[in-house]
Amino acid sequence: MNTRPENIVAALSSVLGEGPVALHEPRFDGNEKRYLSNCVDSTFVSSVGAYVDRFETDLARFTGAKHVVATVNGTSALHIALLLVGVQPGDEVLVPALSFVATANAVRYCNATPHFLDSEKSTLGIDPAAMATWLAETCTMDSGKCVNRTTGNRIAAVVPMHTFGHPCDIAGVLAVAADYGLPVVEDAAESLGSLVGSQHTGTFGLLGILSFNGNKIVTTGGGGAILTNDSDLARRAKHLTTTAKVPHGWEYVHDEVGYNYRMPNINAALGCAQLEELESFIASKRHLYQKYREALSQIDGIRILSEPSGTRSNYWLQTLLLDADKTDLRAEILEVLNNNGFMSRPAWNLLPSLKPFQGCPSAPLPVAKSLERRIINIPSSSGLSEFKSSDDYAQ
Amino acid sequence: MNTRPENIVAALSSVLGEGPVALHEPRFDGNEKRYLSNCVDSTFVSSVGAYVDRFETDLARFTGAKHVVATVNGTSALHIALLLVGVQPGDEVLVPALSFVATANAVRYCNATPHFLDSEKSTLGIDPAAMATWLAETCTMDSGKCVNRTTGNRIAAVVPMHTFGHPCDIAGVLAVAADYGLPVVEDAAESLGSLVGSQHTGTFGLLGILSFNGNKIVTTGGGGAILTNDSDLARRAKHLTTTAKVPHGWEYVHDEVGYNYRMPNINAALGCAQLEELESFIASKRHLYQKYREALSQIDGIRILSEPSGTRSNYWLQTLLLDADKTDLRAEILEVLNNNGFMSRPAWNLLPSLKPFQGCPSAPLPVAKSLERRIINIPSSSGLSEFKSSDDYAQ
Repeated sequence: MNTRPENIVAALSSVLGEGPVALHEPRFDGNEKRYLSNCVDSTFVSSVGAYVDRFETDLARFTGAKHVVATVNGTSALHIALLLVGVQPGDEVLVPALSFVATANAVRYCNATPHFLDSEKSTLGIDPAAMATWLAETCTMDSGKCVNRTTGNRIAAVVPMHTFGHPCDIAGVLAVAADYGLPVVEDAAESLGSLVGSQHTGTFGLLGILSFNGNKIVTTGGGGAILTNDSDLARRAKHLTTTAKVPHGWEYVHDEVGYNYRMPNINAALGCAQLEELESFIASKRHLYQKYREALSQIDGIRILSEPSGTRSNYWLQTLLLDADKTDLRAEILEVLNNNGFMSRPAWNLLPSLKPFQGCPSAPLPVAKSLERRIINIPSSSGLSEFKSSDDYAQ
Repeated sequence: MNTRPENIVAALSSVLGEGPVALHEPRFDGNEKRYLSNCVDSTFVSSVGAYVDRFETDLARFTGAKHVVATVNGTSALHIALLLVGVQPGDEVLVPALSFVATANAVRYCNATPHFLDSEKSTLGIDPAAMATWLAETCTMDSGKCVNRTTGNRIAAVVPMHTFGHPCDIAGVLAVAADYGLPVVEDAAESLGSLVGSQHTGTFGLLGILSFNGNKIVTTGGGGAILTNDSDLARRAKHLTTTAKVPHGWEYVHDEVGYNYRMPNINAALGCAQLEELESFIASKRHLYQKYREALSQIDGIRILSEPSGTRSNYWLQTLLLDADKTDLRAEILEVLNNNGFMSRPAWNLLPSLKPFQGCPSAPLPVAKSLERRIINIPSSSGLSEFKSSDDYAQ
């Protein structure tokens, strides 16, 4: 079948039934209400409480990170992580051009400048080979620092992001980063539950961050977390995400500027219940991918993105990729899918094209520019794969 | 009776009964669990939802502000309010030396410098007369800008704070600010329900902010709000507290750096229930003040702080003030009160004494320095005044 929007609508209908179907909805089938109620009964709804402690412990167990610090959202987690690896005003931070705006905003909060890198076709994430070439061409090592020869600024860190839940080539990025002495902060906002080999995304860098926004695989309303295996960095993360108060029974001494980014206990209560369901959400999303793949297999010119080899993806957002010669169909496909109630969206506009980041340093972006025009995210909520369950279980 | 700690303990016991009694606990007697449950059922727990809209509308009605924008906490609200009045990197912002650290931290987030002002004895807030004298001595008007002659920096705003819920002399501060062309951002984090005449604190300045932290008169877990009567500023506040996304069905265009500070719907659900109880909380706290005043009236050298004349205070934190010649008793009184289970605390250490603000510009602080050594906050939760209810209702 050809790449007509009607054929894609028919394929989605065969998986999802009739619309409207949201792009991504949270699912609350577990202990959410019970834990919220317990939290209110405890009166500890704010920045300290048993659910925050448990949420951090549960996340540490799930991800394998030694330390977890829960925050109000993924953006704030990334802000603190960048400060902790030493990003200073005037520095540059390498980030993928193809990412959500928060990745670059967090760099700006440090009064630093995002410096954009190209993507790899197979992962959508930073291409380590292109990164190595670009750094070799434009940067120099000066007394152990990586310096952008054009701007004269220090390059202070690199932030690989695991796009739509698919792990990037983190080993490749770590190797290039090591060559230039760059600390790695992993933006795992979208990839809770995604593994490289058997290791969780977000635990390869010196620090990693997660997001629990309402559109993520599990949600705390708003929320994020900082992951690290370094106990000093974890202690600093907790200090900076509070008001940097020095412990005392009643005196008010704050020894640095803190950011008041702590996740409230009431949000963590929701999170604890959600984490209990995470493995079933991942299984559901992986199953949905299989069903989409089958349904779309007869359509030319478009395919669904699969997890990179050697990884397990959480398939947070299911991703269609048009062939390069079908790019001009994207707007029409989006229009028809949305008009038929299958809520769909393109990839983010590339970050260097946005007003606040125009003029920031950027590597050539041939792959990211191509991907930007070819991506369509389709309904991805956990639970969608259970439609037509009689068929499913007969297979 | 003399100012011995034992006498103060006896006075507090006569009001509170036996300890332990917390300094301030939230109270959840209303629709909190029901609204949280409804919020989960709606699946809208994150940055948009009916409870956020309602919380903003309810707050607007309660405070009389034309526009309210709910945020993750009071610190974030103050950060955005300062950006909106035009605070730029390198500017100075006038803040009270006697305040919680967040007031000065928010100035730092703008890459500006806090410039500290002295307090007024009767309100604890900024002393307009001392402010006027200090500005006349140290600042000059240059092309419509107020410039610190010593540092050469522009003074960009003034942030009066309503300490422990007691309104400062906001009319006086507004008048001096007008003389120097300074926008006023009111830090009403502690004063929800406190009025000057019949007008709510936080609505006198160009912008004002509230806090709903767990220790405040009502709580959303973590939360804050920006108040303004200016519809353009309100629109900008909403834009900056999100990701500054330009409205579109599915495209991702962000036209400036946003801060991801929006209050989640799940927190607003808690807040809507709390607001329904606010007037009863205020009544309870005002009643507690009366009981404390009576119980402490026989003790020399110490008094409980009363609302400034012409105002209604929410009496958020009940405040004992030692006479100047009794200052050296404060540490012992705090020790004995806490040891007897009546959780008590001193005022904050003055902000210019904290490491991150040492060396920042400061007016002379004779009153703030004196107050800092003489303040003791005592248990203040709503509901404490209902102890010994048989006596109460017989009066």
